[in-house]
Amino acid sequence: MPTDRFVTRRNKLLRALHKTDAKALLVTNFTNVSYLTGFSGDDSWLLVSPNCTILISDSRYQIQLAEECPDLDVVIRSNRQPIVESTVKILKKAKLPNLGFESDSTTVAQWETLQAATKSLELVPIAGLVEELREIKDAHELASLRKAVRQAQRGFAVMRASLKGDMTELEFAHDLEHAMRGFGARAAGFDPIVAVGPRAALPHANPTSARISEADLLLIDWGAMSQDGYRSDLTRVLVTGRISSKLRKIYEVVLKAQLRGIAAIRPGVTGKQVDAAARSVIEKAGYGKQFGHGLGHGIGLDIHEGTRLSPVSKDVLKPGMVITVEPGIYIPGWGGVRIEDDILVTRDGHEVLTSVPKQFEDAILG
Amino acid sequence: MPTDRFVTRRNKLLRALHKTDAKALLVTNFTNVSYLTGFSGDDSWLLVSPNCTILISDSRYQIQLAEECPDLDVVIRSNRQPIVESTVKILKKAKLPNLGFESDSTTVAQWETLQAATKSLELVPIAGLVEELREIKDAHELASLRKAVRQAQRGFAVMRASLKGDMTELEFAHDLEHAMRGFGARAAGFDPIVAVGPRAALPHANPTSARISEADLLLIDWGAMSQDGYRSDLTRVLVTGRISSKLRKIYEVVLKAQLRGIAAIRPGVTGKQVDAAARSVIEKAGYGKQFGHGLGHGIGLDIHEGTRLSPVSKDVLKPGMVITVEPGIYIPGWGGVRIEDDILVTRDGHEVLTSVPKQFEDAILG
Repeated sequence: MPTDRFVTRRNKLLRALHKTDAKALLVTNFTNVSYLTGFSGDDSWLLVSPNCTILISDSRYQIQLAEECPDLDVVIRSNRQPIVESTVKILKKAKLPNLGFESDSTTVAQWETLQAATKSLELVPIAGLVEELREIKDAHELASLRKAVRQAQRGFAVMRASLKGDMTELEFAHDLEHAMRGFGARAAGFDPIVAVGPRAALPHANPTSARISEADLLLIDWGAMSQDGYRSDLTRVLVTGRISSKLRKIYEVVLKAQLRGIAAIRPGVTGKQVDAAARSVIEKAGYGKQFGHGLGHGIGLDIHEGTRLSPVSKDVLKPGMVITVEPGIYIPGWGGVRIEDDILVTRDGHEVLTSVPKQFEDAILG
Repeated sequence: MPTDRFVTRRNKLLRALHKTDAKALLVTNFTNVSYLTGFSGDDSWLLVSPNCTILISDSRYQIQLAEECPDLDVVIRSNRQPIVESTVKILKKAKLPNLGFESDSTTVAQWETLQAATKSLELVPIAGLVEELREIKDAHELASLRKAVRQAQRGFAVMRASLKGDMTELEFAHDLEHAMRGFGARAAGFDPIVAVGPRAALPHANPTSARISEADLLLIDWGAMSQDGYRSDLTRVLVTGRISSKLRKIYEVVLKAQLRGIAAIRPGVTGKQVDAAARSVIEKAGYGKQFGHGLGHGIGLDIHEGTRLSPVSKDVLKPGMVITVEPGIYIPGWGGVRIEDDILVTRDGHEVLTSVPKQFEDAILG
């Protein structure tokens, strides 16, 4: 049965819900709805209680839902009926003792409508319950993440092989997404960062019409989204011009920091400890102030989710988490180096899911 | 001054705000923030009052903001500080008499934090104020929409010219986005619908690995997003196989309905009236039940915004609105025909912005 894993996830949610005051949960975050049902569309809510599971969607998705969630109770609203009004009708019939709702995604206007229409029903704000389940990836999610890694890596290999100096950052970004789709990706996992020379000093540079030949280095931060929505996230720097000793030195520091960070990953350590393992290398080399962001973050259906690796993170690593490790050194006016891989926390340590070569020599274009 | 139009928009907003109980507005819808400031990133809020205009963003966007909104007061929060907490600090200093906030985009959790931290400040839910301004496009927006139309049309022309029977729906969708980007689009305006034969009977079909040669018709619903975020939206049907009399008949009915709908567009008419002008043609031909959706919708920074054309729409057309007209006839198991163009409401009628040929003969691949 292809739906088994979604039943398992919903049962886990019910057990987590049992520890709160809420007797049912209205899931209004579309990504959480996908996670709990396998439905790949959006604009849909899910009501989960020990007695019922109802997906509230609209007529655009009727056939898709029959294919993707054949075992689920589905209520199809007309386009003219806002989702919150359709939900009110269902709530009136469901006679729940109270209702938890996702307060991080339900808007005030939706909540006001729910409140006004179901006066006797107590609404309990709940935050992060499904997100916490999503931190630990199951076998199917890991398979999807591995696909997203492969799509990203194959797309990058095509781009590396076909790189030309007169290509712009924008062209590189667009061709990269197209290449990843050719290997089965639904889309890029996020808008790729493609930054020539000094623009690599911006941790989040939008691609521009700057040409690759305009500087000596190119930073690419990219990933793929698998057909079922899981996202990979990598960063590599390519040496596209002169090989300077400054670039080599900074590159080696970042790489050493990244390897130390990865080596620190195992169940039980905190995000702060992993961050410190990498950050201390960069600090000792005198670049501490040039590494202004956290070391990494969880990935999955969202490109940033769950666990954070940072100087203040108390998150504790657990088997099944997938996190990025991405230290960087940024020198305004010169450029920046960041190296990023995706790491699975295993029962006795970790597994690096990504495998694009990253020695300094590998970064040099022939 | 490139920022002039944003000052004009914010002044219009202040005048609209004056008619409400709120003395200031916290804009939490990222698209509305872009509309009011020209900032092309997201994750940012805007506080607007007669005395101050403050953009609340984060360090990723610092340099981009200096380029895009040089005249704006900007508060940069650290990545570790949630946007709502940064906003609380600003509100405490601003000493406002009360605060309107966008209740359609502010989450309950954010509102609870605002409420708890600024106890003496009355929070007034406001919905649709900026969205109403966005319905009437200014000269700059129209220029952007015309760009998005040209990018979409040139991309489509490339695809039409290079179409092959063994191409899949997914490949067509991906190549189309890539082609539009080649003509300057930031991305597709939305995930294109590319539907072979019977799949065209689904008003919102996700592209699959079905091949174009598998049926006699191909429906494409696509658009481009201009670099500054404006979206075009078109639909055409191509005859890729046998030219059946059924297809010709249905096509001609849909085209006649569409032309009647377009002809009805002028200031002062309602969305219901325009819908009826098109729908009556389809009903008279006996296909009323096979046209299950509204006739059209506003486009702009969002792919669905503002005015609706539908059997129940009381929206009144005004000069400067840009709307789609997209009647369709869907026959389960056989396929569907939809024809969609983008129309500007002018002072004395309308202007059709899109110009892909749409006579039945134009739909036949040579």
